[in-house]
Amino acid sequence: MWSDRRLCELFGIDHPIVQAPMTGTCTPSLASAVANAGGLGSLGAGEKPIDLVRREVGEIRKLTDRSFNLNFFVTDAARTDPAVLDATLKRLRPWYAKLGLGDPPAELPPCGPGFDDARLELLLDLKPKVASFHFGCPDQRSVEALKRAGIVLVSTATNVAEARSLEAAGMDAIIAQGWEAGGHRGSHTLTEPWEAVGTMALVPQVVDAVSVPVIAAGGISDGRGIAAALALGAAGVQMGTAFLGCPETATGAARRARLRRATDSDTIVTDAFSGRCARAMRSHFAEEMERSRQQLPAFIQMYALSEPIIAAADDDDASFHLYGQAAGLMKENGAGDMVERLVRETRSVLKRLVIA
Amino acid sequence: MWSDRRLCELFGIDHPIVQAPMTGTCTPSLASAVANAGGLGSLGAGEKPIDLVRREVGEIRKLTDRSFNLNFFVTDAARTDPAVLDATLKRLRPWYAKLGLGDPPAELPPCGPGFDDARLELLLDLKPKVASFHFGCPDQRSVEALKRAGIVLVSTATNVAEARSLEAAGMDAIIAQGWEAGGHRGSHTLTEPWEAVGTMALVPQVVDAVSVPVIAAGGISDGRGIAAALALGAAGVQMGTAFLGCPETATGAARRARLRRATDSDTIVTDAFSGRCARAMRSHFAEEMERSRQQLPAFIQMYALSEPIIAAADDDDASFHLYGQAAGLMKENGAGDMVERLVRETRSVLKRLVIA
Repeated sequence: MWSDRRLCELFGIDHPIVQAPMTGTCTPSLASAVANAGGLGSLGAGEKPIDLVRREVGEIRKLTDRSFNLNFFVTDAARTDPAVLDATLKRLRPWYAKLGLGDPPAELPPCGPGFDDARLELLLDLKPKVASFHFGCPDQRSVEALKRAGIVLVSTATNVAEARSLEAAGMDAIIAQGWEAGGHRGSHTLTEPWEAVGTMALVPQVVDAVSVPVIAAGGISDGRGIAAALALGAAGVQMGTAFLGCPETATGAARRARLRRATDSDTIVTDAFSGRCARAMRSHFAEEMERSRQQLPAFIQMYALSEPIIAAADDDDASFHLYGQAAGLMKENGAGDMVERLVRETRSVLKRLVIA
Repeated sequence: MWSDRRLCELFGIDHPIVQAPMTGTCTPSLASAVANAGGLGSLGAGEKPIDLVRREVGEIRKLTDRSFNLNFFVTDAARTDPAVLDATLKRLRPWYAKLGLGDPPAELPPCGPGFDDARLELLLDLKPKVASFHFGCPDQRSVEALKRAGIVLVSTATNVAEARSLEAAGMDAIIAQGWEAGGHRGSHTLTEPWEAVGTMALVPQVVDAVSVPVIAAGGISDGRGIAAALALGAAGVQMGTAFLGCPETATGAARRARLRRATDSDTIVTDAFSGRCARAMRSHFAEEMERSRQQLPAFIQMYALSEPIIAAADDDDASFHLYGQAAGLMKENGAGDMVERLVRETRSVLKRLVIA
């Protein structure tokens, strides 16, 4: 039913619907159910131990012989300026005190790099049909090695300039991630939340700027969104939040209950949790940190400071619950049924739009 | 060619394309050219003297007998807390000093209310086919009087809750304004920039929440965007930035030149200029004010403090140039040709999407 079949051919799938690789939420059963329904199932390998990634890929391969996607974070080794750490500790002490957590940790654990030689070897060894990257893309040597191995490469752009640089680096397709998207923004540099471009403005400008297929992401949660993305010139879509309600995800019961009450307005983009901008549920902690923005410890190192607060506070005070602005449209089908429903919905929207 | 003709019938137009009422930029010749091409031309009457509005409406009526729309700001009389004013002056003094402007004004002029009895009388007297409102909608008594006069009423929602309240107040159609939109955000209360919902997530959720027709706004600049909005369930679109390049606008030569270089990323949402969030061109002043957010003087009163800075600084340092995130897609057709081009483009996108 798809008039643009570029992604179907590139990825070896039936429907140009990519399930977003949400680390910590995706499971082998989610990825394989999406794959078996003809979409592209994904597994986030971002911060997972290499052994766990191997085991989970083994599970996917037991459950499907269709294509799937492994996702990695392309980040440098984290380095936090001592003055930035000091200033951050000063802001966090009242939260630690209020929650009875004692003093915040005075040192930050080493983190990253996100895509190192060990992960390159892992990827070359596991050889998924598709590998996708967040926060940029690997260096030229790695890209060449991965291409020689026949792996299709995808990365994320949050603006036109990033899309151009990904095409120049040899990516086979580009995800255009808009403001609405849940989870971490894939920006290649540190950004302020208010710098983000919305999906409706981003997709057509990325489509005009690059010649590889563009995958629209952000705010797309049903057939209407898929049809809109195609209208904007995207070859397909990536959807995360839409799959959060599937029984195959690792979403806990409390978070499922929260998602059922989600509205268009109850998330914000903040770097207060990880050190990089991510769209997560609103909380007093996140709002307070956003109202007075300042530089925070490097990506992922910041978790060492925010995790105790997240763990001790109730959800309204502080939680790192990642979802997008269209969570209100989420349904709780099984992941395979979800893909079928999305395809059916898209067909009916497109038929409704057919003109005289 | 439109399968959803609700707006065509409600407004008495041929194409469900509303030209946004950009006060200071719209002209009678712009509104009438759009109207004559079958769209809904609009004139911003927000802060204009009543006599000027009368004169401009007279000009529109000389140029077209088609429907047009008059737009008003629904704001309370401005009241600024002296402590807020003091804190703001402290932040602005370095800018005034740097630009050789002496001391900032120590008192703020009275402003508003935006839609008072005089404007209600004006509207009842001029009786345009359509009146639209920004920042909320008039009180019940006014809405009833306007409806009795046969004027079709429209207002703007930036989230689902606002859309519901506008439907309850009797609006005949609702503009769903996403994050991408240029100019002032129509939020009914003061908001932080990072609270905004993107068009792709906003439109389908507003469509599901209300039964009146929804007009999508924000990031829509060509036929792809119009087709996407229809796919999301909107009955039509409102476009502002797309018309900024038309020769009929009051856009000055320097701003036209700047718009020709516009990218997806060179605007931000800030309240640093007027006291309410608006999407405008990035500048050092706006970025500095956003990096350290704090309460500012009331809407429009804040202009008294920012205007000297805008006037004295160069554009990169401080300018209040309002446009959206899809300005990169702007073309410089005449407004009538623009409407025809948009219709043609939409038809071709929809045809391309027709499925087997």
